[in-house]
Amino acid sequence: MRKYLGIDVGGTNVKCGIITETGEILHQIKYPTLALRQSGNIVGEFLQIVQGLLKQNPDILQVGIGLPGTLNKARTHTIELPNIPELDHCPLLSHLQQAFPDKVFLLENDANAAALGEMYFSGQPMPEDFIFVTLGTGIGGAAIIDGFIFKGGDGNSMEIGHMMSEGGRRLEEIIGKNGLLDMAKEGVKRVGAQSVLANMDPINTKAVLEAAGLNDPLALQIFEKMGYLLGEAFVSMIRVLDIKNVYIGGGISATFDYLYPSLMLAMERNLTPYYLKDLVVKPALLGNHAGILGAASLCISHLALQERALRTN
Amino acid sequence: MRKYLGIDVGGTNVKCGIITETGEILHQIKYPTLALRQSGNIVGEFLQIVQGLLKQNPDILQVGIGLPGTLNKARTHTIELPNIPELDHCPLLSHLQQAFPDKVFLLENDANAAALGEMYFSGQPMPEDFIFVTLGTGIGGAAIIDGFIFKGGDGNSMEIGHMMSEGGRRLEEIIGKNGLLDMAKEGVKRVGAQSVLANMDPINTKAVLEAAGLNDPLALQIFEKMGYLLGEAFVSMIRVLDIKNVYIGGGISATFDYLYPSLMLAMERNLTPYYLKDLVVKPALLGNHAGILGAASLCISHLALQERALRTN
Repeated sequence: MRKYLGIDVGGTNVKCGIITETGEILHQIKYPTLALRQSGNIVGEFLQIVQGLLKQNPDILQVGIGLPGTLNKARTHTIELPNIPELDHCPLLSHLQQAFPDKVFLLENDANAAALGEMYFSGQPMPEDFIFVTLGTGIGGAAIIDGFIFKGGDGNSMEIGHMMSEGGRRLEEIIGKNGLLDMAKEGVKRVGAQSVLANMDPINTKAVLEAAGLNDPLALQIFEKMGYLLGEAFVSMIRVLDIKNVYIGGGISATFDYLYPSLMLAMERNLTPYYLKDLVVKPALLGNHAGILGAASLCISHLALQERALRTN
Repeated sequence: MRKYLGIDVGGTNVKCGIITETGEILHQIKYPTLALRQSGNIVGEFLQIVQGLLKQNPDILQVGIGLPGTLNKARTHTIELPNIPELDHCPLLSHLQQAFPDKVFLLENDANAAALGEMYFSGQPMPEDFIFVTLGTGIGGAAIIDGFIFKGGDGNSMEIGHMMSEGGRRLEEIIGKNGLLDMAKEGVKRVGAQSVLANMDPINTKAVLEAAGLNDPLALQIFEKMGYLLGEAFVSMIRVLDIKNVYIGGGISATFDYLYPSLMLAMERNLTPYYLKDLVVKPALLGNHAGILGAASLCISHLALQERALRTN
């Protein structure tokens, strides 16, 4: 059975996994990103990590790497990685190819990789075309079209957290993690002890989720608002992309059940039967290890792309 | 020199043109759509028209057809044509291929065809990736990615008039032709004779445009609003598609100069340098005959797609 090395480069950790072609994790290890950054030679450190893993696993020929930022369309260079600025504008692919000329390296944005990971490894049957949304500190996205990552014009499509939303503000400002907490704090000021949130310290995402679980009206109202604005953004995305399957993942996707009713309401109000009759909004299932599994799935997608090119001949 | 037949099927007229590969119009003729609809056999009437033109021009091997509505992704069937419901859910390609087995027919949505037409025939150098926006009774759009029409997931991408805008309303409701006239009428009620529009009858798009030409504050304010909301929609589109070139065409694209400042303001406020440094928003130049030229350009794009497939081998 083929094995791949999947590397998920995050702001906190660089996570590495040896993954089989069916998504089994044979081995995993992580390295704190800050230490790599502080070394003054982040690329050198990264190459060392890759070298160690490939030496232990000489049968691995392909390495998928998920990166938290923008890349050029050919996927040879990074552009900007807000949480790892040391890697901005880095010709990472050529560094890797020079160091390991007999291996194949595949670079991709991490949300795109996570969407592919969901398709190949979540165990749920997936359509050929879907939108993947990650709810976390920020709101990210990806689109899979005809079974492959949609890169857009210049390579960095689906920055959906920055779509325009209510009152001339960007979506993420209102319903990203900070926006959500602002709503909670403002709400507590307004309703005081009518909300259990008034007695929670600190008021963080977990607290708002817990309050919603207790049927707290303020917490439910916050998720209702979040769901509705997310639903409006989905309407715009669906009109632009004509994709009717949406999967929601990411750190705060545990909120799915609270978001769903108002999210669907926004879509039912604003989409025609052409879209609504086939519309499916579901939670993503991959959960833990989505990062390394997504990165490893880049290798499988690469093979599928080569096979498609042969079929087109 | 190769010649093509371009047919622009519109709600008012079916326009046909014999077009050279450089975009010269050798011959054109139009038929009122209503008469075709009332015949009770719109497909039969349409085949008659095509037969007549192909008989007169036996050297034409390829026919491009622009249609005002949704199509399946394989471009064999129509789905819905709001202005020509007799053609809904019609296997138009097989009708044409059966009647003219030695010709090639290419069906496409009319906004997509217009975008291609702009690329091939406008005379201005065009990028490989651009968004094309049509301002008319409604607001339509198309995206060209890597030099070809972007179809999205199920074939009907870029329904941008229905993206969400201010106050939970859809873009076209606010700044489509009717929205624009509602703003004008509401404004006249509010400011009365302070606007020259108060003395214009009827208050139509042309009147608002004329008033703007006279520096009428109300008319200028209406276009400022329209530009800003259009700019916000462009922000969302650009974030989803990562395309930095936008061309504006359509019936009321004469408003371009009035829209431009607030349109750019919305984008400058909401896009980062990554987008702004390469951002270009321009009027489309094709103008008259955009419909038949766009339809004919489908034939050129079809050849280019075949050539690309050969190169990939």
